[in-house]
Amino acid sequence: MNMIDIISKKRDNYKLSKEEIDYFINGYVKGEVPDYQVSSLLMAIFLNGLDDDETFNLTMSMLHSGEVMDLSKIDGIKADKHSTGGVGDKVSLVLGPIIASFGVKLAKMSGRGLGHTGGTLDKLESIPGFNINISNERFINQVNTIGLSIIGQTKNLVPADKLLYALRDVTATVDSIPLIASSIMSKKLASGADIIVLDVKVGSGAFMKTIDDALKLSKLMVKIGNKAGKHVSCIITDMDEPLGLAIGNNLEVIEAVKTLEGKGPKDLVDVVVKLCSKILIKAKLYKSEKEASLAILEHINNGSALKKLKDMVAAQDGDNSLIFDTNLFPKSKYIYEVKSKKKGYITHMDALKLGIASMHMGAGRVKKEDSINYNVGIVLNKKTNDYVNINDALCYLHMDKIDDDIIKEVYSAYEFGDKQVEIKTIYEEVD
Amino acid sequence: MNMIDIISKKRDNYKLSKEEIDYFINGYVKGEVPDYQVSSLLMAIFLNGLDDDETFNLTMSMLHSGEVMDLSKIDGIKADKHSTGGVGDKVSLVLGPIIASFGVKLAKMSGRGLGHTGGTLDKLESIPGFNINISNERFINQVNTIGLSIIGQTKNLVPADKLLYALRDVTATVDSIPLIASSIMSKKLASGADIIVLDVKVGSGAFMKTIDDALKLSKLMVKIGNKAGKHVSCIITDMDEPLGLAIGNNLEVIEAVKTLEGKGPKDLVDVVVKLCSKILIKAKLYKSEKEASLAILEHINNGSALKKLKDMVAAQDGDNSLIFDTNLFPKSKYIYEVKSKKKGYITHMDALKLGIASMHMGAGRVKKEDSINYNVGIVLNKKTNDYVNINDALCYLHMDKIDDDIIKEVYSAYEFGDKQVEIKTIYEEVD
Repeated sequence: MNMIDIISKKRDNYKLSKEEIDYFINGYVKGEVPDYQVSSLLMAIFLNGLDDDETFNLTMSMLHSGEVMDLSKIDGIKADKHSTGGVGDKVSLVLGPIIASFGVKLAKMSGRGLGHTGGTLDKLESIPGFNINISNERFINQVNTIGLSIIGQTKNLVPADKLLYALRDVTATVDSIPLIASSIMSKKLASGADIIVLDVKVGSGAFMKTIDDALKLSKLMVKIGNKAGKHVSCIITDMDEPLGLAIGNNLEVIEAVKTLEGKGPKDLVDVVVKLCSKILIKAKLYKSEKEASLAILEHINNGSALKKLKDMVAAQDGDNSLIFDTNLFPKSKYIYEVKSKKKGYITHMDALKLGIASMHMGAGRVKKEDSINYNVGIVLNKKTNDYVNINDALCYLHMDKIDDDIIKEVYSAYEFGDKQVEIKTIYEEVD
Repeated sequence: MNMIDIISKKRDNYKLSKEEIDYFINGYVKGEVPDYQVSSLLMAIFLNGLDDDETFNLTMSMLHSGEVMDLSKIDGIKADKHSTGGVGDKVSLVLGPIIASFGVKLAKMSGRGLGHTGGTLDKLESIPGFNINISNERFINQVNTIGLSIIGQTKNLVPADKLLYALRDVTATVDSIPLIASSIMSKKLASGADIIVLDVKVGSGAFMKTIDDALKLSKLMVKIGNKAGKHVSCIITDMDEPLGLAIGNNLEVIEAVKTLEGKGPKDLVDVVVKLCSKILIKAKLYKSEKEASLAILEHINNGSALKKLKDMVAAQDGDNSLIFDTNLFPKSKYIYEVKSKKKGYITHMDALKLGIASMHMGAGRVKKEDSINYNVGIVLNKKTNDYVNINDALCYLHMDKIDDDIIKEVYSAYEFGDKQVEIKTIYEEVD
């Protein structure tokens, strides 16, 4: 077996065998197969695709390229959640405490933000003292006692994905559905949970631009997960406008806390309740979504979910007095009110533009090495289909420096019309 | 401009601009664009193609990546010839002396053989003393006085092609018509001749397997050459069976000498006369192929063409007593007669298999670093459509060691039937 034959085969649109995929992944991770052969194969995969078997075999090969988390020392049912990334997506911060309050364990490894999308780790680190690098033993112990923990990815988890992702990023081979599916699912399977829920974002602020592509990706990931013996559900949700009202690290933590206090924005609550219901049903705690939803709202109203967040923050060295009173969070120097120059219904607010504006304020990273300003970001006052008059506040920019270019960028994200448009928070469910 | 955008554009099947192609080639030659981005782009080109403009721009960009030969110090009309490579292809050794005998200059840079195909340089070096590394000044001077010289490629000629070819070889992106056309034509244009004739081989022993592909390549190369202001003609010839009777280095030189003595095999003579006629017509020495052909045969019969070969060998330090008497060439230890085990018409003799058998005897290189045994090879006794009886000699293996595996390999190249098949030496002409 050799790489040239494997590349030729995929180039000529034949199916790769499990052995060929293993040869490629193992060789690449060992440094025996050079980048230039892998990038040529990746482009052939991008253009000719992989079928379901090939994608499953690639996922399994990547999964076994490094350490696989052993969660057997955690009692009970373990769930994990993944989002394909978007603007204002603080779902994990709300979902984790809720399911933990039902006794379903969340032992989650998260990522950092890059570009216009935020990362759960950065949001958690906006809580003073919060430690995302606790030892494996402490992690397992915390999940057993409190019911949840969110930490950074361990270094040796799916090394094949790290290598492939870095190469795809510089060879224009990112937007391939089988490559995205195998990247996400290899990491989720390596994380060791029994139940996996996936939130595939679609729209201007997401990697997937069409519902059709999002559906293909979702079905593929559910199929891979099921074949690997896991319970997997997927929902496709809107990322044409940001999720919720807050964009930016501690602003999003504050919104998560408010949501756990029962004061969350409708779209965020809808997504959280839907994902949590799916977990609770797969965990066999409830039979219908209706039952599960009612129970979830009760755990929000009685404070048991919020308590789990407070417990996790304390257990991971964070100052949880800020969770008890979110007014204690550090604030940006200025809050700039963006006043509408037009009147009418908001027909579109571009999540990508708002994400980039927030990044330019300092809430996100342009490059991996950049540091983050936890206090800045955007709080929306109106959302799509809201009616605004001239001078009504569209949003508030939490900035450390008034920057006219950023203000212009924010204005350019809005479109207005004289009629409401059709939008949905949750487009599809794939089980 | 950046490589990721350029790769994405070709990946999505858009047309690359001249500036984008220049950016890629210049960046690659300077070492600023890494192999892994180029291989990804090459695979996108392989699968989505390049149109005529893109291929022309790529050719010109490659051509200008290094030195361009200045033949202005050579008086008169300069011609050059290229073959896409095959088994038993000694055309250059016959064509050069013929056109030189008419006063058309051949200032040719040739290549070495690799795999089953032979190289003109290796064949010339089978003449004791022959020097393919003469200085540029001596080269120009020799062409001016004798009319021809064949040397190795200068190091800085089309460095982009050397880099791209090496990368294509290991990334399964060799067999792409626009990439082959730009590789060949950039080198031919950099060699500085006014008239270029191209011999595109098709069949089992050639890179092009179908006449359809060979036609596409031929038309594309003629178009590129014409657009660059050169006279270009192309013929498509058979490489399903070897050309002529001899395969192997000094065996092919001996056959070239015999052909210049008027005793050449018909297929070889046909190809040589066709290519020479095209050159003489483009050089405006004759008006029709008929006139040109008659003149060529006269130059063979009167010895003026053979004299040019003798002069070139002497001028390049070779022992030309061997050209005067080819019996003086060193010989292999054994000549093994391959006797037919069947009777009937030879319906196919696989050029690739015979080329590989010859390579395994030592006449060719498996790897670039391999050395060559100049005395070994195969001399065919029968060709396709000849009738053979059992025990008739099919061919003679000139070997230094009797090797049963090689003998088996040779037998496996032959197919027999009870009817002759339709074959042609020259399939198409593209002007």
